[in-house]
Amino acid sequence: MLLELKNEGRHPAGRQIVTQIQDLIQEGHLNPGECLPSTRRLGEQLGLHRSTIANAYQELWALGWLELRPGTLPRVRRRGALKTAATPLTGQFPWAERMVVPPPEPMPVPNPAETPVSFNTLGMDPRLMPVEPLARSLKAVLRREGAQLLDYGDPQGLQTFRECLSHRMAQHGITASPEEILVTHGAQQALDLALAGLTRPGDAILVESPTYNQMLKLLALRRVRPLAIPTGATGLDLAALEALIQKEKPALLYTMPSFQNPTGRSLTQAQREGLLALCEQYALPILEDGFEEEMTYFGRPVLPLKSMDRSGLVLYSGTFSKVLFPGLRVGWLVGSRACVETLATVRRAVDLGTPPLLQAALEDFIRKGHFDQHLARLHRAFRRRMTACLAALRRELDPEQVRWEAPLGGYLVWLKVEGLPTSLDLEEALLAHGIQVRSGNRFFIESQEGGPYLRLSISNLDETDIARGIARLGAGLRALKAAHALTL
Amino acid sequence: MLLELKNEGRHPAGRQIVTQIQDLIQEGHLNPGECLPSTRRLGEQLGLHRSTIANAYQELWALGWLELRPGTLPRVRRRGALKTAATPLTGQFPWAERMVVPPPEPMPVPNPAETPVSFNTLGMDPRLMPVEPLARSLKAVLRREGAQLLDYGDPQGLQTFRECLSHRMAQHGITASPEEILVTHGAQQALDLALAGLTRPGDAILVESPTYNQMLKLLALRRVRPLAIPTGATGLDLAALEALIQKEKPALLYTMPSFQNPTGRSLTQAQREGLLALCEQYALPILEDGFEEEMTYFGRPVLPLKSMDRSGLVLYSGTFSKVLFPGLRVGWLVGSRACVETLATVRRAVDLGTPPLLQAALEDFIRKGHFDQHLARLHRAFRRRMTACLAALRRELDPEQVRWEAPLGGYLVWLKVEGLPTSLDLEEALLAHGIQVRSGNRFFIESQEGGPYLRLSISNLDETDIARGIARLGAGLRALKAAHALTL
Repeated sequence: MLLELKNEGRHPAGRQIVTQIQDLIQEGHLNPGECLPSTRRLGEQLGLHRSTIANAYQELWALGWLELRPGTLPRVRRRGALKTAATPLTGQFPWAERMVVPPPEPMPVPNPAETPVSFNTLGMDPRLMPVEPLARSLKAVLRREGAQLLDYGDPQGLQTFRECLSHRMAQHGITASPEEILVTHGAQQALDLALAGLTRPGDAILVESPTYNQMLKLLALRRVRPLAIPTGATGLDLAALEALIQKEKPALLYTMPSFQNPTGRSLTQAQREGLLALCEQYALPILEDGFEEEMTYFGRPVLPLKSMDRSGLVLYSGTFSKVLFPGLRVGWLVGSRACVETLATVRRAVDLGTPPLLQAALEDFIRKGHFDQHLARLHRAFRRRMTACLAALRRELDPEQVRWEAPLGGYLVWLKVEGLPTSLDLEEALLAHGIQVRSGNRFFIESQEGGPYLRLSISNLDETDIARGIARLGAGLRALKAAHALTL
Repeated sequence: MLLELKNEGRHPAGRQIVTQIQDLIQEGHLNPGECLPSTRRLGEQLGLHRSTIANAYQELWALGWLELRPGTLPRVRRRGALKTAATPLTGQFPWAERMVVPPPEPMPVPNPAETPVSFNTLGMDPRLMPVEPLARSLKAVLRREGAQLLDYGDPQGLQTFRECLSHRMAQHGITASPEEILVTHGAQQALDLALAGLTRPGDAILVESPTYNQMLKLLALRRVRPLAIPTGATGLDLAALEALIQKEKPALLYTMPSFQNPTGRSLTQAQREGLLALCEQYALPILEDGFEEEMTYFGRPVLPLKSMDRSGLVLYSGTFSKVLFPGLRVGWLVGSRACVETLATVRRAVDLGTPPLLQAALEDFIRKGHFDQHLARLHRAFRRRMTACLAALRRELDPEQVRWEAPLGGYLVWLKVEGLPTSLDLEEALLAHGIQVRSGNRFFIESQEGGPYLRLSISNLDETDIARGIARLGAGLRALKAAHALTL
């Protein structure tokens, strides 16, 4: 094969190799099925490192000119390069008119001069993820069980993994057999499956207001009407809730009793018992979102509603995304068999199930004790981080202008800002001061009551990030207040 | 720690260890936070292998009595064993009344005396899966990119993986930039997302009849009405289709142009062009399901509709589930940006995205050439298997009683059985003869036209399985026909 590299400095050698081989194929000097030299041989011939040749071959593969197979020489593609007739997608089909859901929201663009501190992310700090033990578990289960972990599995989830989840649930006071557990693609899918199985378009559902904003998006997709659970000065207003249940006959009540998103608040034991008794009286199923169940690091844990559920009306959703690996997308639902097994048929229809490989690897990881060890480390880290956050809030913010409650755990602090108009776009205004926060109005059902509010999540920030971010928040809010005072 | 093992033979040593340690904790002889001896030490003390002790400790962990952490001694759980108040889920909540979807269908139980040959499974034969190279790719990407692959990713899919898919699509004549690709949780979710984004409850959708039965389940969940695409003696009836489009104004047309499920049929080039022109004329979006696009192993491949789509009205779904690893649940949608980017927001709401780890591992696997190598091996295997299947059908079945067409690739053969009533439950009747098949009536929109039909899938069967299975099918059908003749 004749390649000539020109040393003019403008065209890198790899680029020239790609172009010249393309030309040789197109002009018929290299024919389909013919082999090219090995990366080592061509590298020696041209006086280049073999990785340069390997990269050029990969690009030619990517462009459809070569076939690459381990252990054999590269070959010119037999079917010809691209199969002809490729028409670019420049068409003018009126998709925007056809979509029955809204297009993506524009994202505010950070000031490129300064990396903002983000109080948006609610997940797991990658710096704290136990990656090595997971890699070992992946390797161990694939070696032990092989191809069956790469085949379709039970849409309800691997039996042994559900046994493992059953044991973990017992540690939160929840008794559930593996048959009463459905593995889901994260807690997000657990919520969507519950809506698919228990609501019809036009039905009403009771939710806290403010509540998890992605739940509001799910409700819109499923065409279900959210109704605010009434609250009084001390939290839940059970009398008003009872009246609303009688009037609206909702299909479901959705609640996050611990470290609620976005407020970080937890229901007291008495509130939990009252809510459960009321729902029992009206045979109203509860969807309990235990998304941060494992994150009690101050004080004594409160039991989930599901642990006190005698009649079986609570459907509980759990997840590893807030305490382990969000990107594995593994969550679960716990409920009565009649409910869970029917939701498994919905799961089968929507996506056929969670990858068995990931379930088996997590099970191995948990059974070897890595999860308990990791949780202990996570709690130590967040006792420090949340303490640092609350200290910084006291230090940097004017208590007359900003109010908050100290949470009992989790990642969230909910701020109520006084003296600024609720119409102000605080996300954009504070981004100019170098921080990303979620504005409270994303979380309310309709219009925001009072405020403006801000949700801070510290899940991905260490003490240094937190101190820097809260200082910027204080400075930003002072500047906004001064500017607002001027315009009044 | 004092443990006494009784050698009575009735209670295994491990069981006795579990019970005695439980008793020691409950009676206060072992307190929360106290350490237990290492598996080695306790093993030596009791004269048992350390793995017996390790298993007993694991069971005690699973029951909530111990904390196990790598590199430290086992410890009695600090929070006390189970947190009290655990109430069994014996409740009588009327879930069956509350579910808006049907419960699971009962499954026919095979005769335990004989393992049936299953022509049901439509996936990938685990015996042909390239497990080792995937294990290496998983290890390589985790080592290279670490925790970021375990964090939430872009709900549209990893950018580099979408580039890789873009290159593969080019090999089927489809030009699509990474921005025009959405990674999904298998093709099944791709179909569900298209329905969520493009249909409202009550809308009509055109589908082939018979069609993919899990698509019919999705339509029921989304409350969308299926309408049969009219067919004549030679396939598609475009004139009748045009009249139906005018009358019903469907929101979408769903088609599997190659190796259709369940019939195994492929549209001709002329039919593809006609269908595309008609949909263009009526601005009717097409959802093209390319679930076996890679499985042309007889003759020349026909180009997908998407490759000829000038106006951008085709939304194409692809998958690795039928040719690689079904259990990784990775598929994708290709379409215009306005459509794909909006569907990515739906994807975000329903489950936040596909695990980045699995996308990165597949990308590494593909870029190293393992996919091309595997496909070549798969095509060789299925040229042999399908040839064996068609030969066995000719050998074992009465051509007067059973008719079929030889497919151009894929895994499916569609049989039309003559001389038996369509009301006969062929699945159950043939299970008694040692084979599992799908009855055709699962795939029709409403009532089955003609038949009875049977769908055979050979995806998970080798030549020996196929020969044995088709012989049983022949014997079974002959017996059924004889029995039926007697009752007439």
